[in-house]
Amino acid sequence: MTKQKKRNVIVGQSGGPTAAINSSLAGVFRTAKDRGYSKVYGMLHGVQGLLEGRYIDLSDHIRTGLDAELLKRTPSAYLGSCRYKLPGINEDRDVYDKIFKILDDLEIDCFIYIGGNDSMDTIKKLSDYAIVIGSEIRFVGCPKTIDNDLALTDHTPGYGSAAKYIGTSVKEIIRDGWSLETSNGQIIIVEIMGRNAGWLTGAAALSKGEDCDGPDAIYLPELDFDVKAFVKKCKELLKKKSSVVIAVSEGIHTKDGTYISEMGNATDYVDAFGHKQLTGTARYLCDLLSNEIGCKTRAIELSTLQRAASHCSSRVDILEAYEVGGAAMKAADEGDSGKMVVIERLSDDPYQAGTEVKDVHKIANDERLVPREWITKDGTYVTSEFITYVRPLIQGDVAPVMVDGIPRHLYVPGYQELL
Amino acid sequence: MTKQKKRNVIVGQSGGPTAAINSSLAGVFRTAKDRGYSKVYGMLHGVQGLLEGRYIDLSDHIRTGLDAELLKRTPSAYLGSCRYKLPGINEDRDVYDKIFKILDDLEIDCFIYIGGNDSMDTIKKLSDYAIVIGSEIRFVGCPKTIDNDLALTDHTPGYGSAAKYIGTSVKEIIRDGWSLETSNGQIIIVEIMGRNAGWLTGAAALSKGEDCDGPDAIYLPELDFDVKAFVKKCKELLKKKSSVVIAVSEGIHTKDGTYISEMGNATDYVDAFGHKQLTGTARYLCDLLSNEIGCKTRAIELSTLQRAASHCSSRVDILEAYEVGGAAMKAADEGDSGKMVVIERLSDDPYQAGTEVKDVHKIANDERLVPREWITKDGTYVTSEFITYVRPLIQGDVAPVMVDGIPRHLYVPGYQELL
Repeated sequence: MTKQKKRNVIVGQSGGPTAAINSSLAGVFRTAKDRGYSKVYGMLHGVQGLLEGRYIDLSDHIRTGLDAELLKRTPSAYLGSCRYKLPGINEDRDVYDKIFKILDDLEIDCFIYIGGNDSMDTIKKLSDYAIVIGSEIRFVGCPKTIDNDLALTDHTPGYGSAAKYIGTSVKEIIRDGWSLETSNGQIIIVEIMGRNAGWLTGAAALSKGEDCDGPDAIYLPELDFDVKAFVKKCKELLKKKSSVVIAVSEGIHTKDGTYISEMGNATDYVDAFGHKQLTGTARYLCDLLSNEIGCKTRAIELSTLQRAASHCSSRVDILEAYEVGGAAMKAADEGDSGKMVVIERLSDDPYQAGTEVKDVHKIANDERLVPREWITKDGTYVTSEFITYVRPLIQGDVAPVMVDGIPRHLYVPGYQELL
Repeated sequence: MTKQKKRNVIVGQSGGPTAAINSSLAGVFRTAKDRGYSKVYGMLHGVQGLLEGRYIDLSDHIRTGLDAELLKRTPSAYLGSCRYKLPGINEDRDVYDKIFKILDDLEIDCFIYIGGNDSMDTIKKLSDYAIVIGSEIRFVGCPKTIDNDLALTDHTPGYGSAAKYIGTSVKEIIRDGWSLETSNGQIIIVEIMGRNAGWLTGAAALSKGEDCDGPDAIYLPELDFDVKAFVKKCKELLKKKSSVVIAVSEGIHTKDGTYISEMGNATDYVDAFGHKQLTGTARYLCDLLSNEIGCKTRAIELSTLQRAASHCSSRVDILEAYEVGGAAMKAADEGDSGKMVVIERLSDDPYQAGTEVKDVHKIANDERLVPREWITKDGTYVTSEFITYVRPLIQGDVAPVMVDGIPRHLYVPGYQELL
């Protein structure tokens, strides 16, 4: 790099929010400032908002060290998110020209995008286009997803906090289930996010310990779901205990590819990427069990809280998200483009990890699933290897800043109107 | 009191569990021991379990000060709970004779029951029967319910922690809703417990502050729910903002007394097995809005987590629950019977409260609802008086004892098999 003068940075957030995505934003901002960039812009609602000319100067929002600490503790995408998919370069060059015009007008040197698979597709295309037109803007991706399904990285920021919330909540649900006796027993089905990857659902096993048996079965979307075998397993479990708790992924499906959620009252909603919106897996299975066994059932969806529960976030996760944001900024500053920062694990125990930079072409649109050998042979639980992998990622807390008994988030006057 | 020698105490838990009910149990145990009682028995699954001869010696479970601290942080009824209603004394004396035989065999002086309305009915009947047969056993009630609907007490232990969890979670849900833009806007309906009393649903307003607008509307079960007005209100809200969050009680009902959750039933909603299904209130309203407005919707039930989320409990609540347990034990020790401990608020700001003892005959089977004047005129929110009332009850935290990244609960070997 022989640039004489550092100009500006722009950063965006994309895809589903997490409890850690704003910590990465704080990390990008801090490192950009530390490395002498003039302005750090935040695009509102990602590339989609940028195309509409919507962005803010982050210095108006992160004004003090306390603001940065609040931002780390603020759930949801501070800048707003989007699920916008860039067209192929050959399909529509106008969109690209428009984006680069905006970036040039803002005198952008570095473009950081915090997101998952689809967001890395954006980094890939924009960095490719920069080569095509000879632009010197560097495009670097910063990984983020509760789903933990990005390729080439040991794990993704956001996953650890979601896993901690899931392990904690499932443990409380299990304990609650012990309190009341029911004549025919009860089965509680907890539905957890993760369309194709079972990383989150497997985290339900974190509730298992010296004081809790953990869920009685865990069904990941990596394997086909056998409805008959499931009912049989539930019957057997009810013979042994009066309160059974089962964790299922929203994405479990039968051998022919039919989602369980489609078997009941599924909605036909699809997002911009053509993903089917799944709801009601637990509800369907509860109806099924009531019908087949006649036991009491309860369907619990952890819903958006599993990605938004900053009050229960993991310290390891929040700090790593911050570091990864800084590392993405560093990489762009030092001339990398078309890259994503990844986390490399050096050791499980004691847990040690560092960051590296990898080619985004090898990452985008690729999904990392739970390995078959980390799921038990009968497909109804995760193995101890899975727990060894996830346990370090949920360690420690980030105490919320409590004001009037409720966690405080970052908010500057007029902020919501911007979104 | 002229008793020469103190003998034993028995304590039970009844009704829906809370995050604070075990703190009261710890309080009863401590005060009983401090006041020189020999054994403190815990009936398993309340009076129902006692009738089957199921009880434990609490000294086997609360062995150390650390155990007591863990118990305070353990959700769900440690002793197991029940929803058993004693027959009237004139209906079935055998049940009473059986209970008193067991109590006499265990050399019980004091019987403490931690619970809500139905549990106080048990205290009332047993203390009445003691008079009938000339028994010297004292029966005292210790209030507990997340519903906060017990008469004569300012509030009930368990409510503050549930309110804190609801305020915190609703705030995170609101923030999460800001992240993604949807073309026609989205409405998120959060369903909160409380069949007849709106204390819990009103607590959603605790999310409102300098950094959050709070939910856009709150519907309590104290008022009739007007479906048409609700749809109209939602349409208006969507004109003003793209993400709308509404809190509803599970018990909202139309003027003729039909629960909203029953309306899915009335309109021939059947599950995948052809059975009429009582859909959730939030689910029904979301389906309705999708149909009437065509916006994206999301139904979120806080489910059992709102009563079991010890990881987010209120310090005021946990400490008061402990004190109230101790006060119940003290009252029984000093000769009170047929009484319940109540909390009297001395001041809102600074918050000060103390305990008193009141006649359980004036409490049992009576429901305390949110006063009409604490609900806005148009019936879609709570007033500042409501917030002034609840705010002190959610103050402070009880840091969970974290082991391997997950909160630790009290568990002694073989404990679960007892339940």
